[in-house]
Amino acid sequence: MSLDTTAHTATSPHPAWLPPTTLARLGDLTTTLDIPPHLADHPVITTLRSEITHAAHNATTTEHPGRASATTTTSRTLTLRLTPPTGATNQPASTQFLGDPHDDAYTLTTTPDTITVTGRTPNALLYGYFALLRHDLTTLPPTSKHTPATAIRMLDHWDNLSVHPVMGQIERGYAGDSIFYTNGAVRENLTRVADYARLLASLGINHVAINNVNVERDAARLLTDNINDVARIAAIFRNWGIRTHLSVSFGSPMSLGGLTSNDPLDPQVRQWWADTFTAVYSVIPDFGGIVIKADSEGQPGPFAYGRTHADGANMLAEALAPHHGIVHWRAFVYNHTQDWRDRTTDRARAAYEHFAPHDGTFADNAIVQIKFGPMDFQAREPISPTFAAMPHTNLSLEFQVTQEYTGQQRHICYLGTQWSEIMRFTFWPTSNPHTTLADIPVSFTAVSNVGMSAYWTGHPLAQANLYAYGRLTWDPTADPGDILTEWLTLTFPHTPAATRTTLHHIMASSWDTYEKYTAPLGVGFMVSPGAAHYGPHIDGYEYSPWGTYHFADRDGVGVDRTRTGTRFVDQYPPELADQYNNLDTCPDELVLFFHHVPYTHVLHSGKTVIQHIYDTHFEGVDKVLDYQRTWDNLRDTIPTAVFEEVSTRLTEQVRCAHEWRDQMCTYFFRKSGIPDTHGRTIY
Amino acid sequence: MSLDTTAHTATSPHPAWLPPTTLARLGDLTTTLDIPPHLADHPVITTLRSEITHAAHNATTTEHPGRASATTTTSRTLTLRLTPPTGATNQPASTQFLGDPHDDAYTLTTTPDTITVTGRTPNALLYGYFALLRHDLTTLPPTSKHTPATAIRMLDHWDNLSVHPVMGQIERGYAGDSIFYTNGAVRENLTRVADYARLLASLGINHVAINNVNVERDAARLLTDNINDVARIAAIFRNWGIRTHLSVSFGSPMSLGGLTSNDPLDPQVRQWWADTFTAVYSVIPDFGGIVIKADSEGQPGPFAYGRTHADGANMLAEALAPHHGIVHWRAFVYNHTQDWRDRTTDRARAAYEHFAPHDGTFADNAIVQIKFGPMDFQAREPISPTFAAMPHTNLSLEFQVTQEYTGQQRHICYLGTQWSEIMRFTFWPTSNPHTTLADIPVSFTAVSNVGMSAYWTGHPLAQANLYAYGRLTWDPTADPGDILTEWLTLTFPHTPAATRTTLHHIMASSWDTYEKYTAPLGVGFMVSPGAAHYGPHIDGYEYSPWGTYHFADRDGVGVDRTRTGTRFVDQYPPELADQYNNLDTCPDELVLFFHHVPYTHVLHSGKTVIQHIYDTHFEGVDKVLDYQRTWDNLRDTIPTAVFEEVSTRLTEQVRCAHEWRDQMCTYFFRKSGIPDTHGRTIY
Repeated sequence: MSLDTTAHTATSPHPAWLPPTTLARLGDLTTTLDIPPHLADHPVITTLRSEITHAAHNATTTEHPGRASATTTTSRTLTLRLTPPTGATNQPASTQFLGDPHDDAYTLTTTPDTITVTGRTPNALLYGYFALLRHDLTTLPPTSKHTPATAIRMLDHWDNLSVHPVMGQIERGYAGDSIFYTNGAVRENLTRVADYARLLASLGINHVAINNVNVERDAARLLTDNINDVARIAAIFRNWGIRTHLSVSFGSPMSLGGLTSNDPLDPQVRQWWADTFTAVYSVIPDFGGIVIKADSEGQPGPFAYGRTHADGANMLAEALAPHHGIVHWRAFVYNHTQDWRDRTTDRARAAYEHFAPHDGTFADNAIVQIKFGPMDFQAREPISPTFAAMPHTNLSLEFQVTQEYTGQQRHICYLGTQWSEIMRFTFWPTSNPHTTLADIPVSFTAVSNVGMSAYWTGHPLAQANLYAYGRLTWDPTADPGDILTEWLTLTFPHTPAATRTTLHHIMASSWDTYEKYTAPLGVGFMVSPGAAHYGPHIDGYEYSPWGTYHFADRDGVGVDRTRTGTRFVDQYPPELADQYNNLDTCPDELVLFFHHVPYTHVLHSGKTVIQHIYDTHFEGVDKVLDYQRTWDNLRDTIPTAVFEEVSTRLTEQVRCAHEWRDQMCTYFFRKSGIPDTHGRTIY
Repeated sequence: MSLDTTAHTATSPHPAWLPPTTLARLGDLTTTLDIPPHLADHPVITTLRSEITHAAHNATTTEHPGRASATTTTSRTLTLRLTPPTGATNQPASTQFLGDPHDDAYTLTTTPDTITVTGRTPNALLYGYFALLRHDLTTLPPTSKHTPATAIRMLDHWDNLSVHPVMGQIERGYAGDSIFYTNGAVRENLTRVADYARLLASLGINHVAINNVNVERDAARLLTDNINDVARIAAIFRNWGIRTHLSVSFGSPMSLGGLTSNDPLDPQVRQWWADTFTAVYSVIPDFGGIVIKADSEGQPGPFAYGRTHADGANMLAEALAPHHGIVHWRAFVYNHTQDWRDRTTDRARAAYEHFAPHDGTFADNAIVQIKFGPMDFQAREPISPTFAAMPHTNLSLEFQVTQEYTGQQRHICYLGTQWSEIMRFTFWPTSNPHTTLADIPVSFTAVSNVGMSAYWTGHPLAQANLYAYGRLTWDPTADPGDILTEWLTLTFPHTPAATRTTLHHIMASSWDTYEKYTAPLGVGFMVSPGAAHYGPHIDGYEYSPWGTYHFADRDGVGVDRTRTGTRFVDQYPPELADQYNNLDTCPDELVLFFHHVPYTHVLHSGKTVIQHIYDTHFEGVDKVLDYQRTWDNLRDTIPTAVFEEVSTRLTEQVRCAHEWRDQMCTYFFRKSGIPDTHGRTIY
């Protein structure tokens, strides 16, 4: 039984889904680049040329599975053909800002002796080349075209330049230090950034924002004094077809520019931003634009001047427009100093209330970036109704690859399953069932889960989340199980197929398992408050100003967001609003998000709420114990370092799942007084 | 109406209870120092001489109340006479280590024309001199002798050298930065230390430990590399008759000495400590000794080597004995990684279990330092039974002047009332009622509440706690209301008597008020966990490893520590054990500490537990609102800066008391479902 020889060593980071043996498959092809002369030295073409050379080198030096059969087909040729459009195109005007997904599309054409990748941009060829890794080259159809769902497929980094006293270097980062910064400045050695860019490009990611939206003073200066450091990072990403963005502070005109106001309608403020971006683009001509969190959780914003979010976003959009830059303006705006006594305020309503009334007033190069749910990246929450409420605004759908509320990369939690379900969601189940959530945004964004961790993501298996995010942003209809199979095949090429099947079994069920042993039935939170957000604390947020309550008492639990409660349901299109409003039709998994019900309420499953809580928590722990036993049996078939790393984290997952189970069951037993029908131990 | 002219300015700290006008009273006396020649240059005599000079200067320059009458008596003389014992004394051997309270005693003898202070040490004269400030000199009895209850009256500082990332510079410090350290080292400018020493000496405090018992690496080195910096502090305290102590880490032989063990029975380890203290005493000949927290909350200790606390303490005692130094070994030892599911472990039992079996085995210069209660400085808890269980061991009774669990110097909470009640407590109410807790220890210790705050203690009125601690350690039988009157008279000499009466009314009831609006009936904690410990969080510690639970469920609340529960009651002498064990005889204020009872249990007060919770919390808030209204009416009679400072803090106290009331009432209403009989608003 052969071990994967690509296991990382202490001196080199883990190769993730691009180990040399995987790449070697392409090295067996005789490859030709067919590029118009004026693009022969394009940085992405230069990168592609280097990839081809390395693949060929790997093919001749690396033992890899399928080599024998590959050798019999070495006469097969691969041609990468760049066919830029000539003459006038009929592109809509918006593409000048948002790009055109067809620019990234590649076509694969095959004969028994040839494979041809064609595309109209260097990026398209790069994506097509990496795509070949995911296919069985012997069964490719004669021709297939692959076009991404959106032109903008982005990752956001919540990296701080220095270690924040509360949040650490990466806010909600669970994979070590930042790959971009150390000691308050951009790293001298950016090798990891280059490796990261390659991983992202292999998935078709084409935009990256490199600093935390909670912008500390040193990070704010990246936009001005330290733009040359940003340029070093942008130069690396550029080689991989990725545009670099910065998170900026709305308070910059005052804090950096010395102005007396940040008012978006103040001509001096507008001029400051215009001048600032002119300077940025003189150094980074393909700078992507900015991400901004304004009037949210203490960040400055337009409200101080009686202006709207549209006023703020449009001011920045105006300053960026001459350079074709874009604004990602986050809709994560709510009252974080709410009084818990006030049952009329509902944080879930906030994004809609702040943004929907301004639909149609945002500039063409402004994108309103909305978290998938109305709360904050819980393991289960409904889809934000704001997506259905702004048809005349560019929207971005924001995910969280970093596992803030889903186990913090200490728990196995494959999120591809969740994201796929979210992307396939429709607001109009009978009237327009084929328009899914994924059809709405012009951009996908997500918070990255990467750091200086040798495995990139802390937990080795959390790499699959980064992979799945990239794949789903390209094709939201892709099956998350298929994506997982792809990732396993690429990442563990020397591992027996049976082991990969076992891993697939664990990971494909892991989100469901995580949901089982944590907050039940969509009620959310119940986590340790503050910087932690890890492990159970059922009342942790119950009397806090954060707007995240469960209202459990001796009789029942859940938040009444129906028409008798906060009326959040009516932010949805009527058909869905009716469904959620009615306890008979509200899906079980969201029942406590929308309704306050007695513990004795019987779910569609036939169980009472209290028995559901008991059962799912015991089941969840049993599943994790099963993962652990199953994993232990894989010892001889997984690279040792990966095996040990995952084993250590599984031990913690087992401990933490027990803690969730026991606190949750004890808490609700103490409140309800209703015993478990199975008589299991509750403390 | 005259304002107090002694209000501090930005450049000088508040004079506390020693404003110039107060001191001026003594300046009106014609004073003579009668000192044997060989002690004429003793540092404390030099200090006393300087005080007399300053008082005389103040008398001639400062307008002060009573001046007119004082002037009529300027012919009265004050003689301070030092009468050191000659020849052999019959002091017990232990006094070589612990000192003799009679050495600090002073006698006041008066005639119409003379006042004489006599004592056998310089300290005694200093104490007698300051004592005159507290008396109406016209009504002094012909003769009175004043002897402190113990020879050791000590303050501990939990000051870190650097700002700790979680705990700040002073652990549980609410009065700004450390007066001793800045930026990882002893301050160059120690003016505040000198002022502090004078305040302490005026109360008879004679020992100070200057660094946190949670000893960080830089602080550990105070004992070795940086002992010369400690010597600078010790030189200041020496002038005021105060001996300086250090907190040390049990791990020092390894961490500082490079040894391979900290085993207290290892000769090399013993030699390291011996050598280290020899070096310390060569620099600080009157070094007081050490304070140590071992095998507690993560600090190293003797358990790692299978040794007992006595083994550890005696090793250090042996090394200190040649120099007459003492060890304060803290009994605050418990399992802080307890499993909340485990109802058999009771943190309250821990100190007794760890220490009582070793009674009689501690060295003569070792003192076991025990917190007043079995938990941790709650506003209400029973007295630690360990005090009654170690008759053959030197014990110290530890208080907390810093208001960790009593409002953190943002709330008015005069603790003299609590400490007096504690000191007057007896373990033998019928068999030995006149032996009080205060009769047991050889030393009183407390955590100081002082920092670089202009008011020393953050909240100006929190100065009274420092004052009361000093006064009670000298005379535990003193009435805490009288002490408060003393403090008010000294601190606010120009304030109308009616204002002082009003302040007395507020402060004397403030501990009772604080108890009313916080955790009820002795159950304790229910505070925000971790570094905060401020404000309510009823379940904050309920599922934690810290051993501080309330076990509230839908039926009842409280901890069963009776003979049907953890049997903690049986750590008390039988008479008390029976009283606490029986719900009929257990005092109401401790009922939830000792019993788990239904919400409908009727207290001796005639109220049910749930109605008591509702009523006390509404009453507590009403009291604080009353304080606020009353304070507002004092605006014209209190120095402006003090008035504003207290007003600001009262606003926070009002807010926080409401938060306590509403969270507590809501939590218990949700659990119990029992409405308030008065129908007040519960959320």
